[in-house]
Amino acid sequence: MITVLLIGKGNVATHLYNAFLKAEAINILQISSRNLSKIPKADITIIAVSDDVIAEVSSKIKNNFVVHTSGSVRLNDLKNKYNKGVFYMLQTFSIDKEIDFSEIPFCLEAENEKDYNLLKTLALSIGQKVYSISSKQRKTIHVAAVFVNNFTNHLYKIGNDICKQNNVPFEILLPLIKETSLKIEQLDPKNAQTGPAIRKDQKTINNHLNLLNDDQQEIYKILTKSIQNGN
Amino acid sequence: MITVLLIGKGNVATHLYNAFLKAEAINILQISSRNLSKIPKADITIIAVSDDVIAEVSSKIKNNFVVHTSGSVRLNDLKNKYNKGVFYMLQTFSIDKEIDFSEIPFCLEAENEKDYNLLKTLALSIGQKVYSISSKQRKTIHVAAVFVNNFTNHLYKIGNDICKQNNVPFEILLPLIKETSLKIEQLDPKNAQTGPAIRKDQKTINNHLNLLNDDQQEIYKILTKSIQNGN
Repeated sequence: MITVLLIGKGNVATHLYNAFLKAEAINILQISSRNLSKIPKADITIIAVSDDVIAEVSSKIKNNFVVHTSGSVRLNDLKNKYNKGVFYMLQTFSIDKEIDFSEIPFCLEAENEKDYNLLKTLALSIGQKVYSISSKQRKTIHVAAVFVNNFTNHLYKIGNDICKQNNVPFEILLPLIKETSLKIEQLDPKNAQTGPAIRKDQKTINNHLNLLNDDQQEIYKILTKSIQNGN
Repeated sequence: MITVLLIGKGNVATHLYNAFLKAEAINILQISSRNLSKIPKADITIIAVSDDVIAEVSSKIKNNFVVHTSGSVRLNDLKNKYNKGVFYMLQTFSIDKEIDFSEIPFCLEAENEKDYNLLKTLALSIGQKVYSISSKQRKTIHVAAVFVNNFTNHLYKIGNDICKQNNVPFEILLPLIKETSLKIEQLDPKNAQTGPAIRKDQKTINNHLNLLNDDQQEIYKILTKSIQNGN
């Protein structure tokens, strides 16, 4: 039996709490980060709070092994006295959408093998995909995630705008969006590329630019150039 | 029974031919675009060839009703004598990947209601999603598709590059990519946006820029600016 103390009441903390409740080998306690006067003992203390208060919250914890759940905060930014670690789940969490933890990559980091194995056991009690990821690697994963999640979502938003401006329902693009995202499970994205940029079809590119506003044109040109440069 | 003549032997033509073969109400014939000396009669003649030869191929056809399958060619670029139309399927076709036609949006255009209804019956014989789309709308759908398909795929490629450079397996990003693409089936992409750009978290943005090469930085900055401007 692993005793886990979860600090935080936000999005990630709530999803984690519900998952640990169902795990038989886990004894889960949860407290708010605003109430740190009497902190219960636990084998693992998970701080699931905003990045900018992780250092402060961690400095008040005297438990043995303290981890945070952030993609962009270093292990050494934890200010607790004893052992430190990271329990980062690489996924986008929405409060009202159920999470399938078996699909989520757990990016784990610890200062020694014993702690790492404990984190691994914890992750496998609710999930299936475990990766050993250093603070440096995690930082770059976080940037890569901005490209494939936030920036990709912005391209969906531009597609939506273009549809709206021409009285076309956005749903018409959804099967293409889905296929594009599934294709790279089988193909390297570089080899999956199609379209006017990679074909250097300047006639179609010019036609497209004529249909776009200034902001859309700027993005269209830069991404076309980057595709053509193979960057 | 609708008799369909399919001209072309490429990717789209091959997938279409196999689908029509299974449709009971369709009598399908297929010929190569290089062999137009003796063209069989048909209720609908579908030209599924490269954009730049559609005009030439169509000029040689004397059948009643001729359509093309292109996203970026106008109805009036067909040069056959009689009725014209468009039978555009909004999807990315790979030769060795099976296509689920029930998922594909059929974007149809014709010069009169009778022809349109014939195209609709044809589309529904192999698919389920039918849209009436003008040449002008189809042009803009094609641009939107470049954003959500080609450009999105390029962001996946950059994510892949960043992972490779840091010895992280790209598969770690696949669940996030999948969730990002599925989220917008329920949420407007504008409302689905998260991350440092929309939060105006300049500290994280600066950290990210320090990890990127020049080309990646340029794309990061422009997309961040566009997200922040709400464009």
